[in-house]
Amino acid sequence: MDISAVNDLSYEEFVNIFGNVVEKCPVVAAAVWSARPFLSFTALEAEIHKFIDVLPQSGKEGILRCHPDLAGRDLQRGTLTQESRAEQAAAGLDALGPAEASLLARLNREYKQRFGFPFVVCVRAADQRAILRQLAERCGNEPALESVRGIEEVKKICRLRLRDIV
Amino acid sequence: MDISAVNDLSYEEFVNIFGNVVEKCPVVAAAVWSARPFLSFTALEAEIHKFIDVLPQSGKEGILRCHPDLAGRDLQRGTLTQESRAEQAAAGLDALGPAEASLLARLNREYKQRFGFPFVVCVRAADQRAILRQLAERCGNEPALESVRGIEEVKKICRLRLRDIV
Repeated sequence: MDISAVNDLSYEEFVNIFGNVVEKCPVVAAAVWSARPFLSFTALEAEIHKFIDVLPQSGKEGILRCHPDLAGRDLQRGTLTQESRAEQAAAGLDALGPAEASLLARLNREYKQRFGFPFVVCVRAADQRAILRQLAERCGNEPALESVRGIEEVKKICRLRLRDIV
Repeated sequence: MDISAVNDLSYEEFVNIFGNVVEKCPVVAAAVWSARPFLSFTALEAEIHKFIDVLPQSGKEGILRCHPDLAGRDLQRGTLTQESRAEQAAAGLDALGPAEASLLARLNREYKQRFGFPFVVCVRAADQRAILRQLAERCGNEPALESVRGIEEVKKICRLRLRDIV
């Protein structure tokens, strides 16, 4: 879909198509529709970033909390969003060995305990080993830094999901 | 559930339980979890209001755009959220006569055309006639006023949904 077709969408069509570019946060797409017409892909992406960036700290943490655990309950139960399922599968997270699965589950718990939100990382370009290493490293970050890191990853995920559409 | 039980919830439990107090905007509950412990129902509600009130205008419109039409496609297709389905049914919107259904559909279209977001009203305490009258009246409002009216209704709906839980 080119950007002029994007600009012709009603808000209902726009939210249907772009509603999950930020995981489980259709309000982001629903809000940026107000800023159309978008001159380019970059302009559309910039509006999404602007929406996220002006949220209070609690709102940024809220966005992180709308993300599923990696290889967590939603993957096991089949309740991931379509986008998350594809991304986690591409990184091999649906086919972990028992040792890796157990390590990931332990680190996810530690991370959530420490920060009050889940570990968010753009997994599409990563593999199991890199993801586990990054999770272990980021568990040691300061909370203020780590929420910034998480939001950076939200934006990377968003860019790839947007690129699948526009 | 009393407020101390609310304060004991993990963010995952909290978002599961409160994620739809603002329609299709789980990020609101996910954000206000940061502000726990809540001293009372009123304090919890106040945090939700604070989150909504500091959103930019586009964000408030985004919240409105996450709401379904009354007696619209989602009701016909069975894709309403559980809360919306119960509320629309209580107001008799699932059992409109052909004349009322046709009038409501026309006014919904006019409203969305004029404002770029759907007509949002707390229907639980209303009936078909009052809803149609209010929709016809609000179609004539200024856009700036009407988004404020819509958000007032979002807060009324939110209060009733919260009261079903706490």
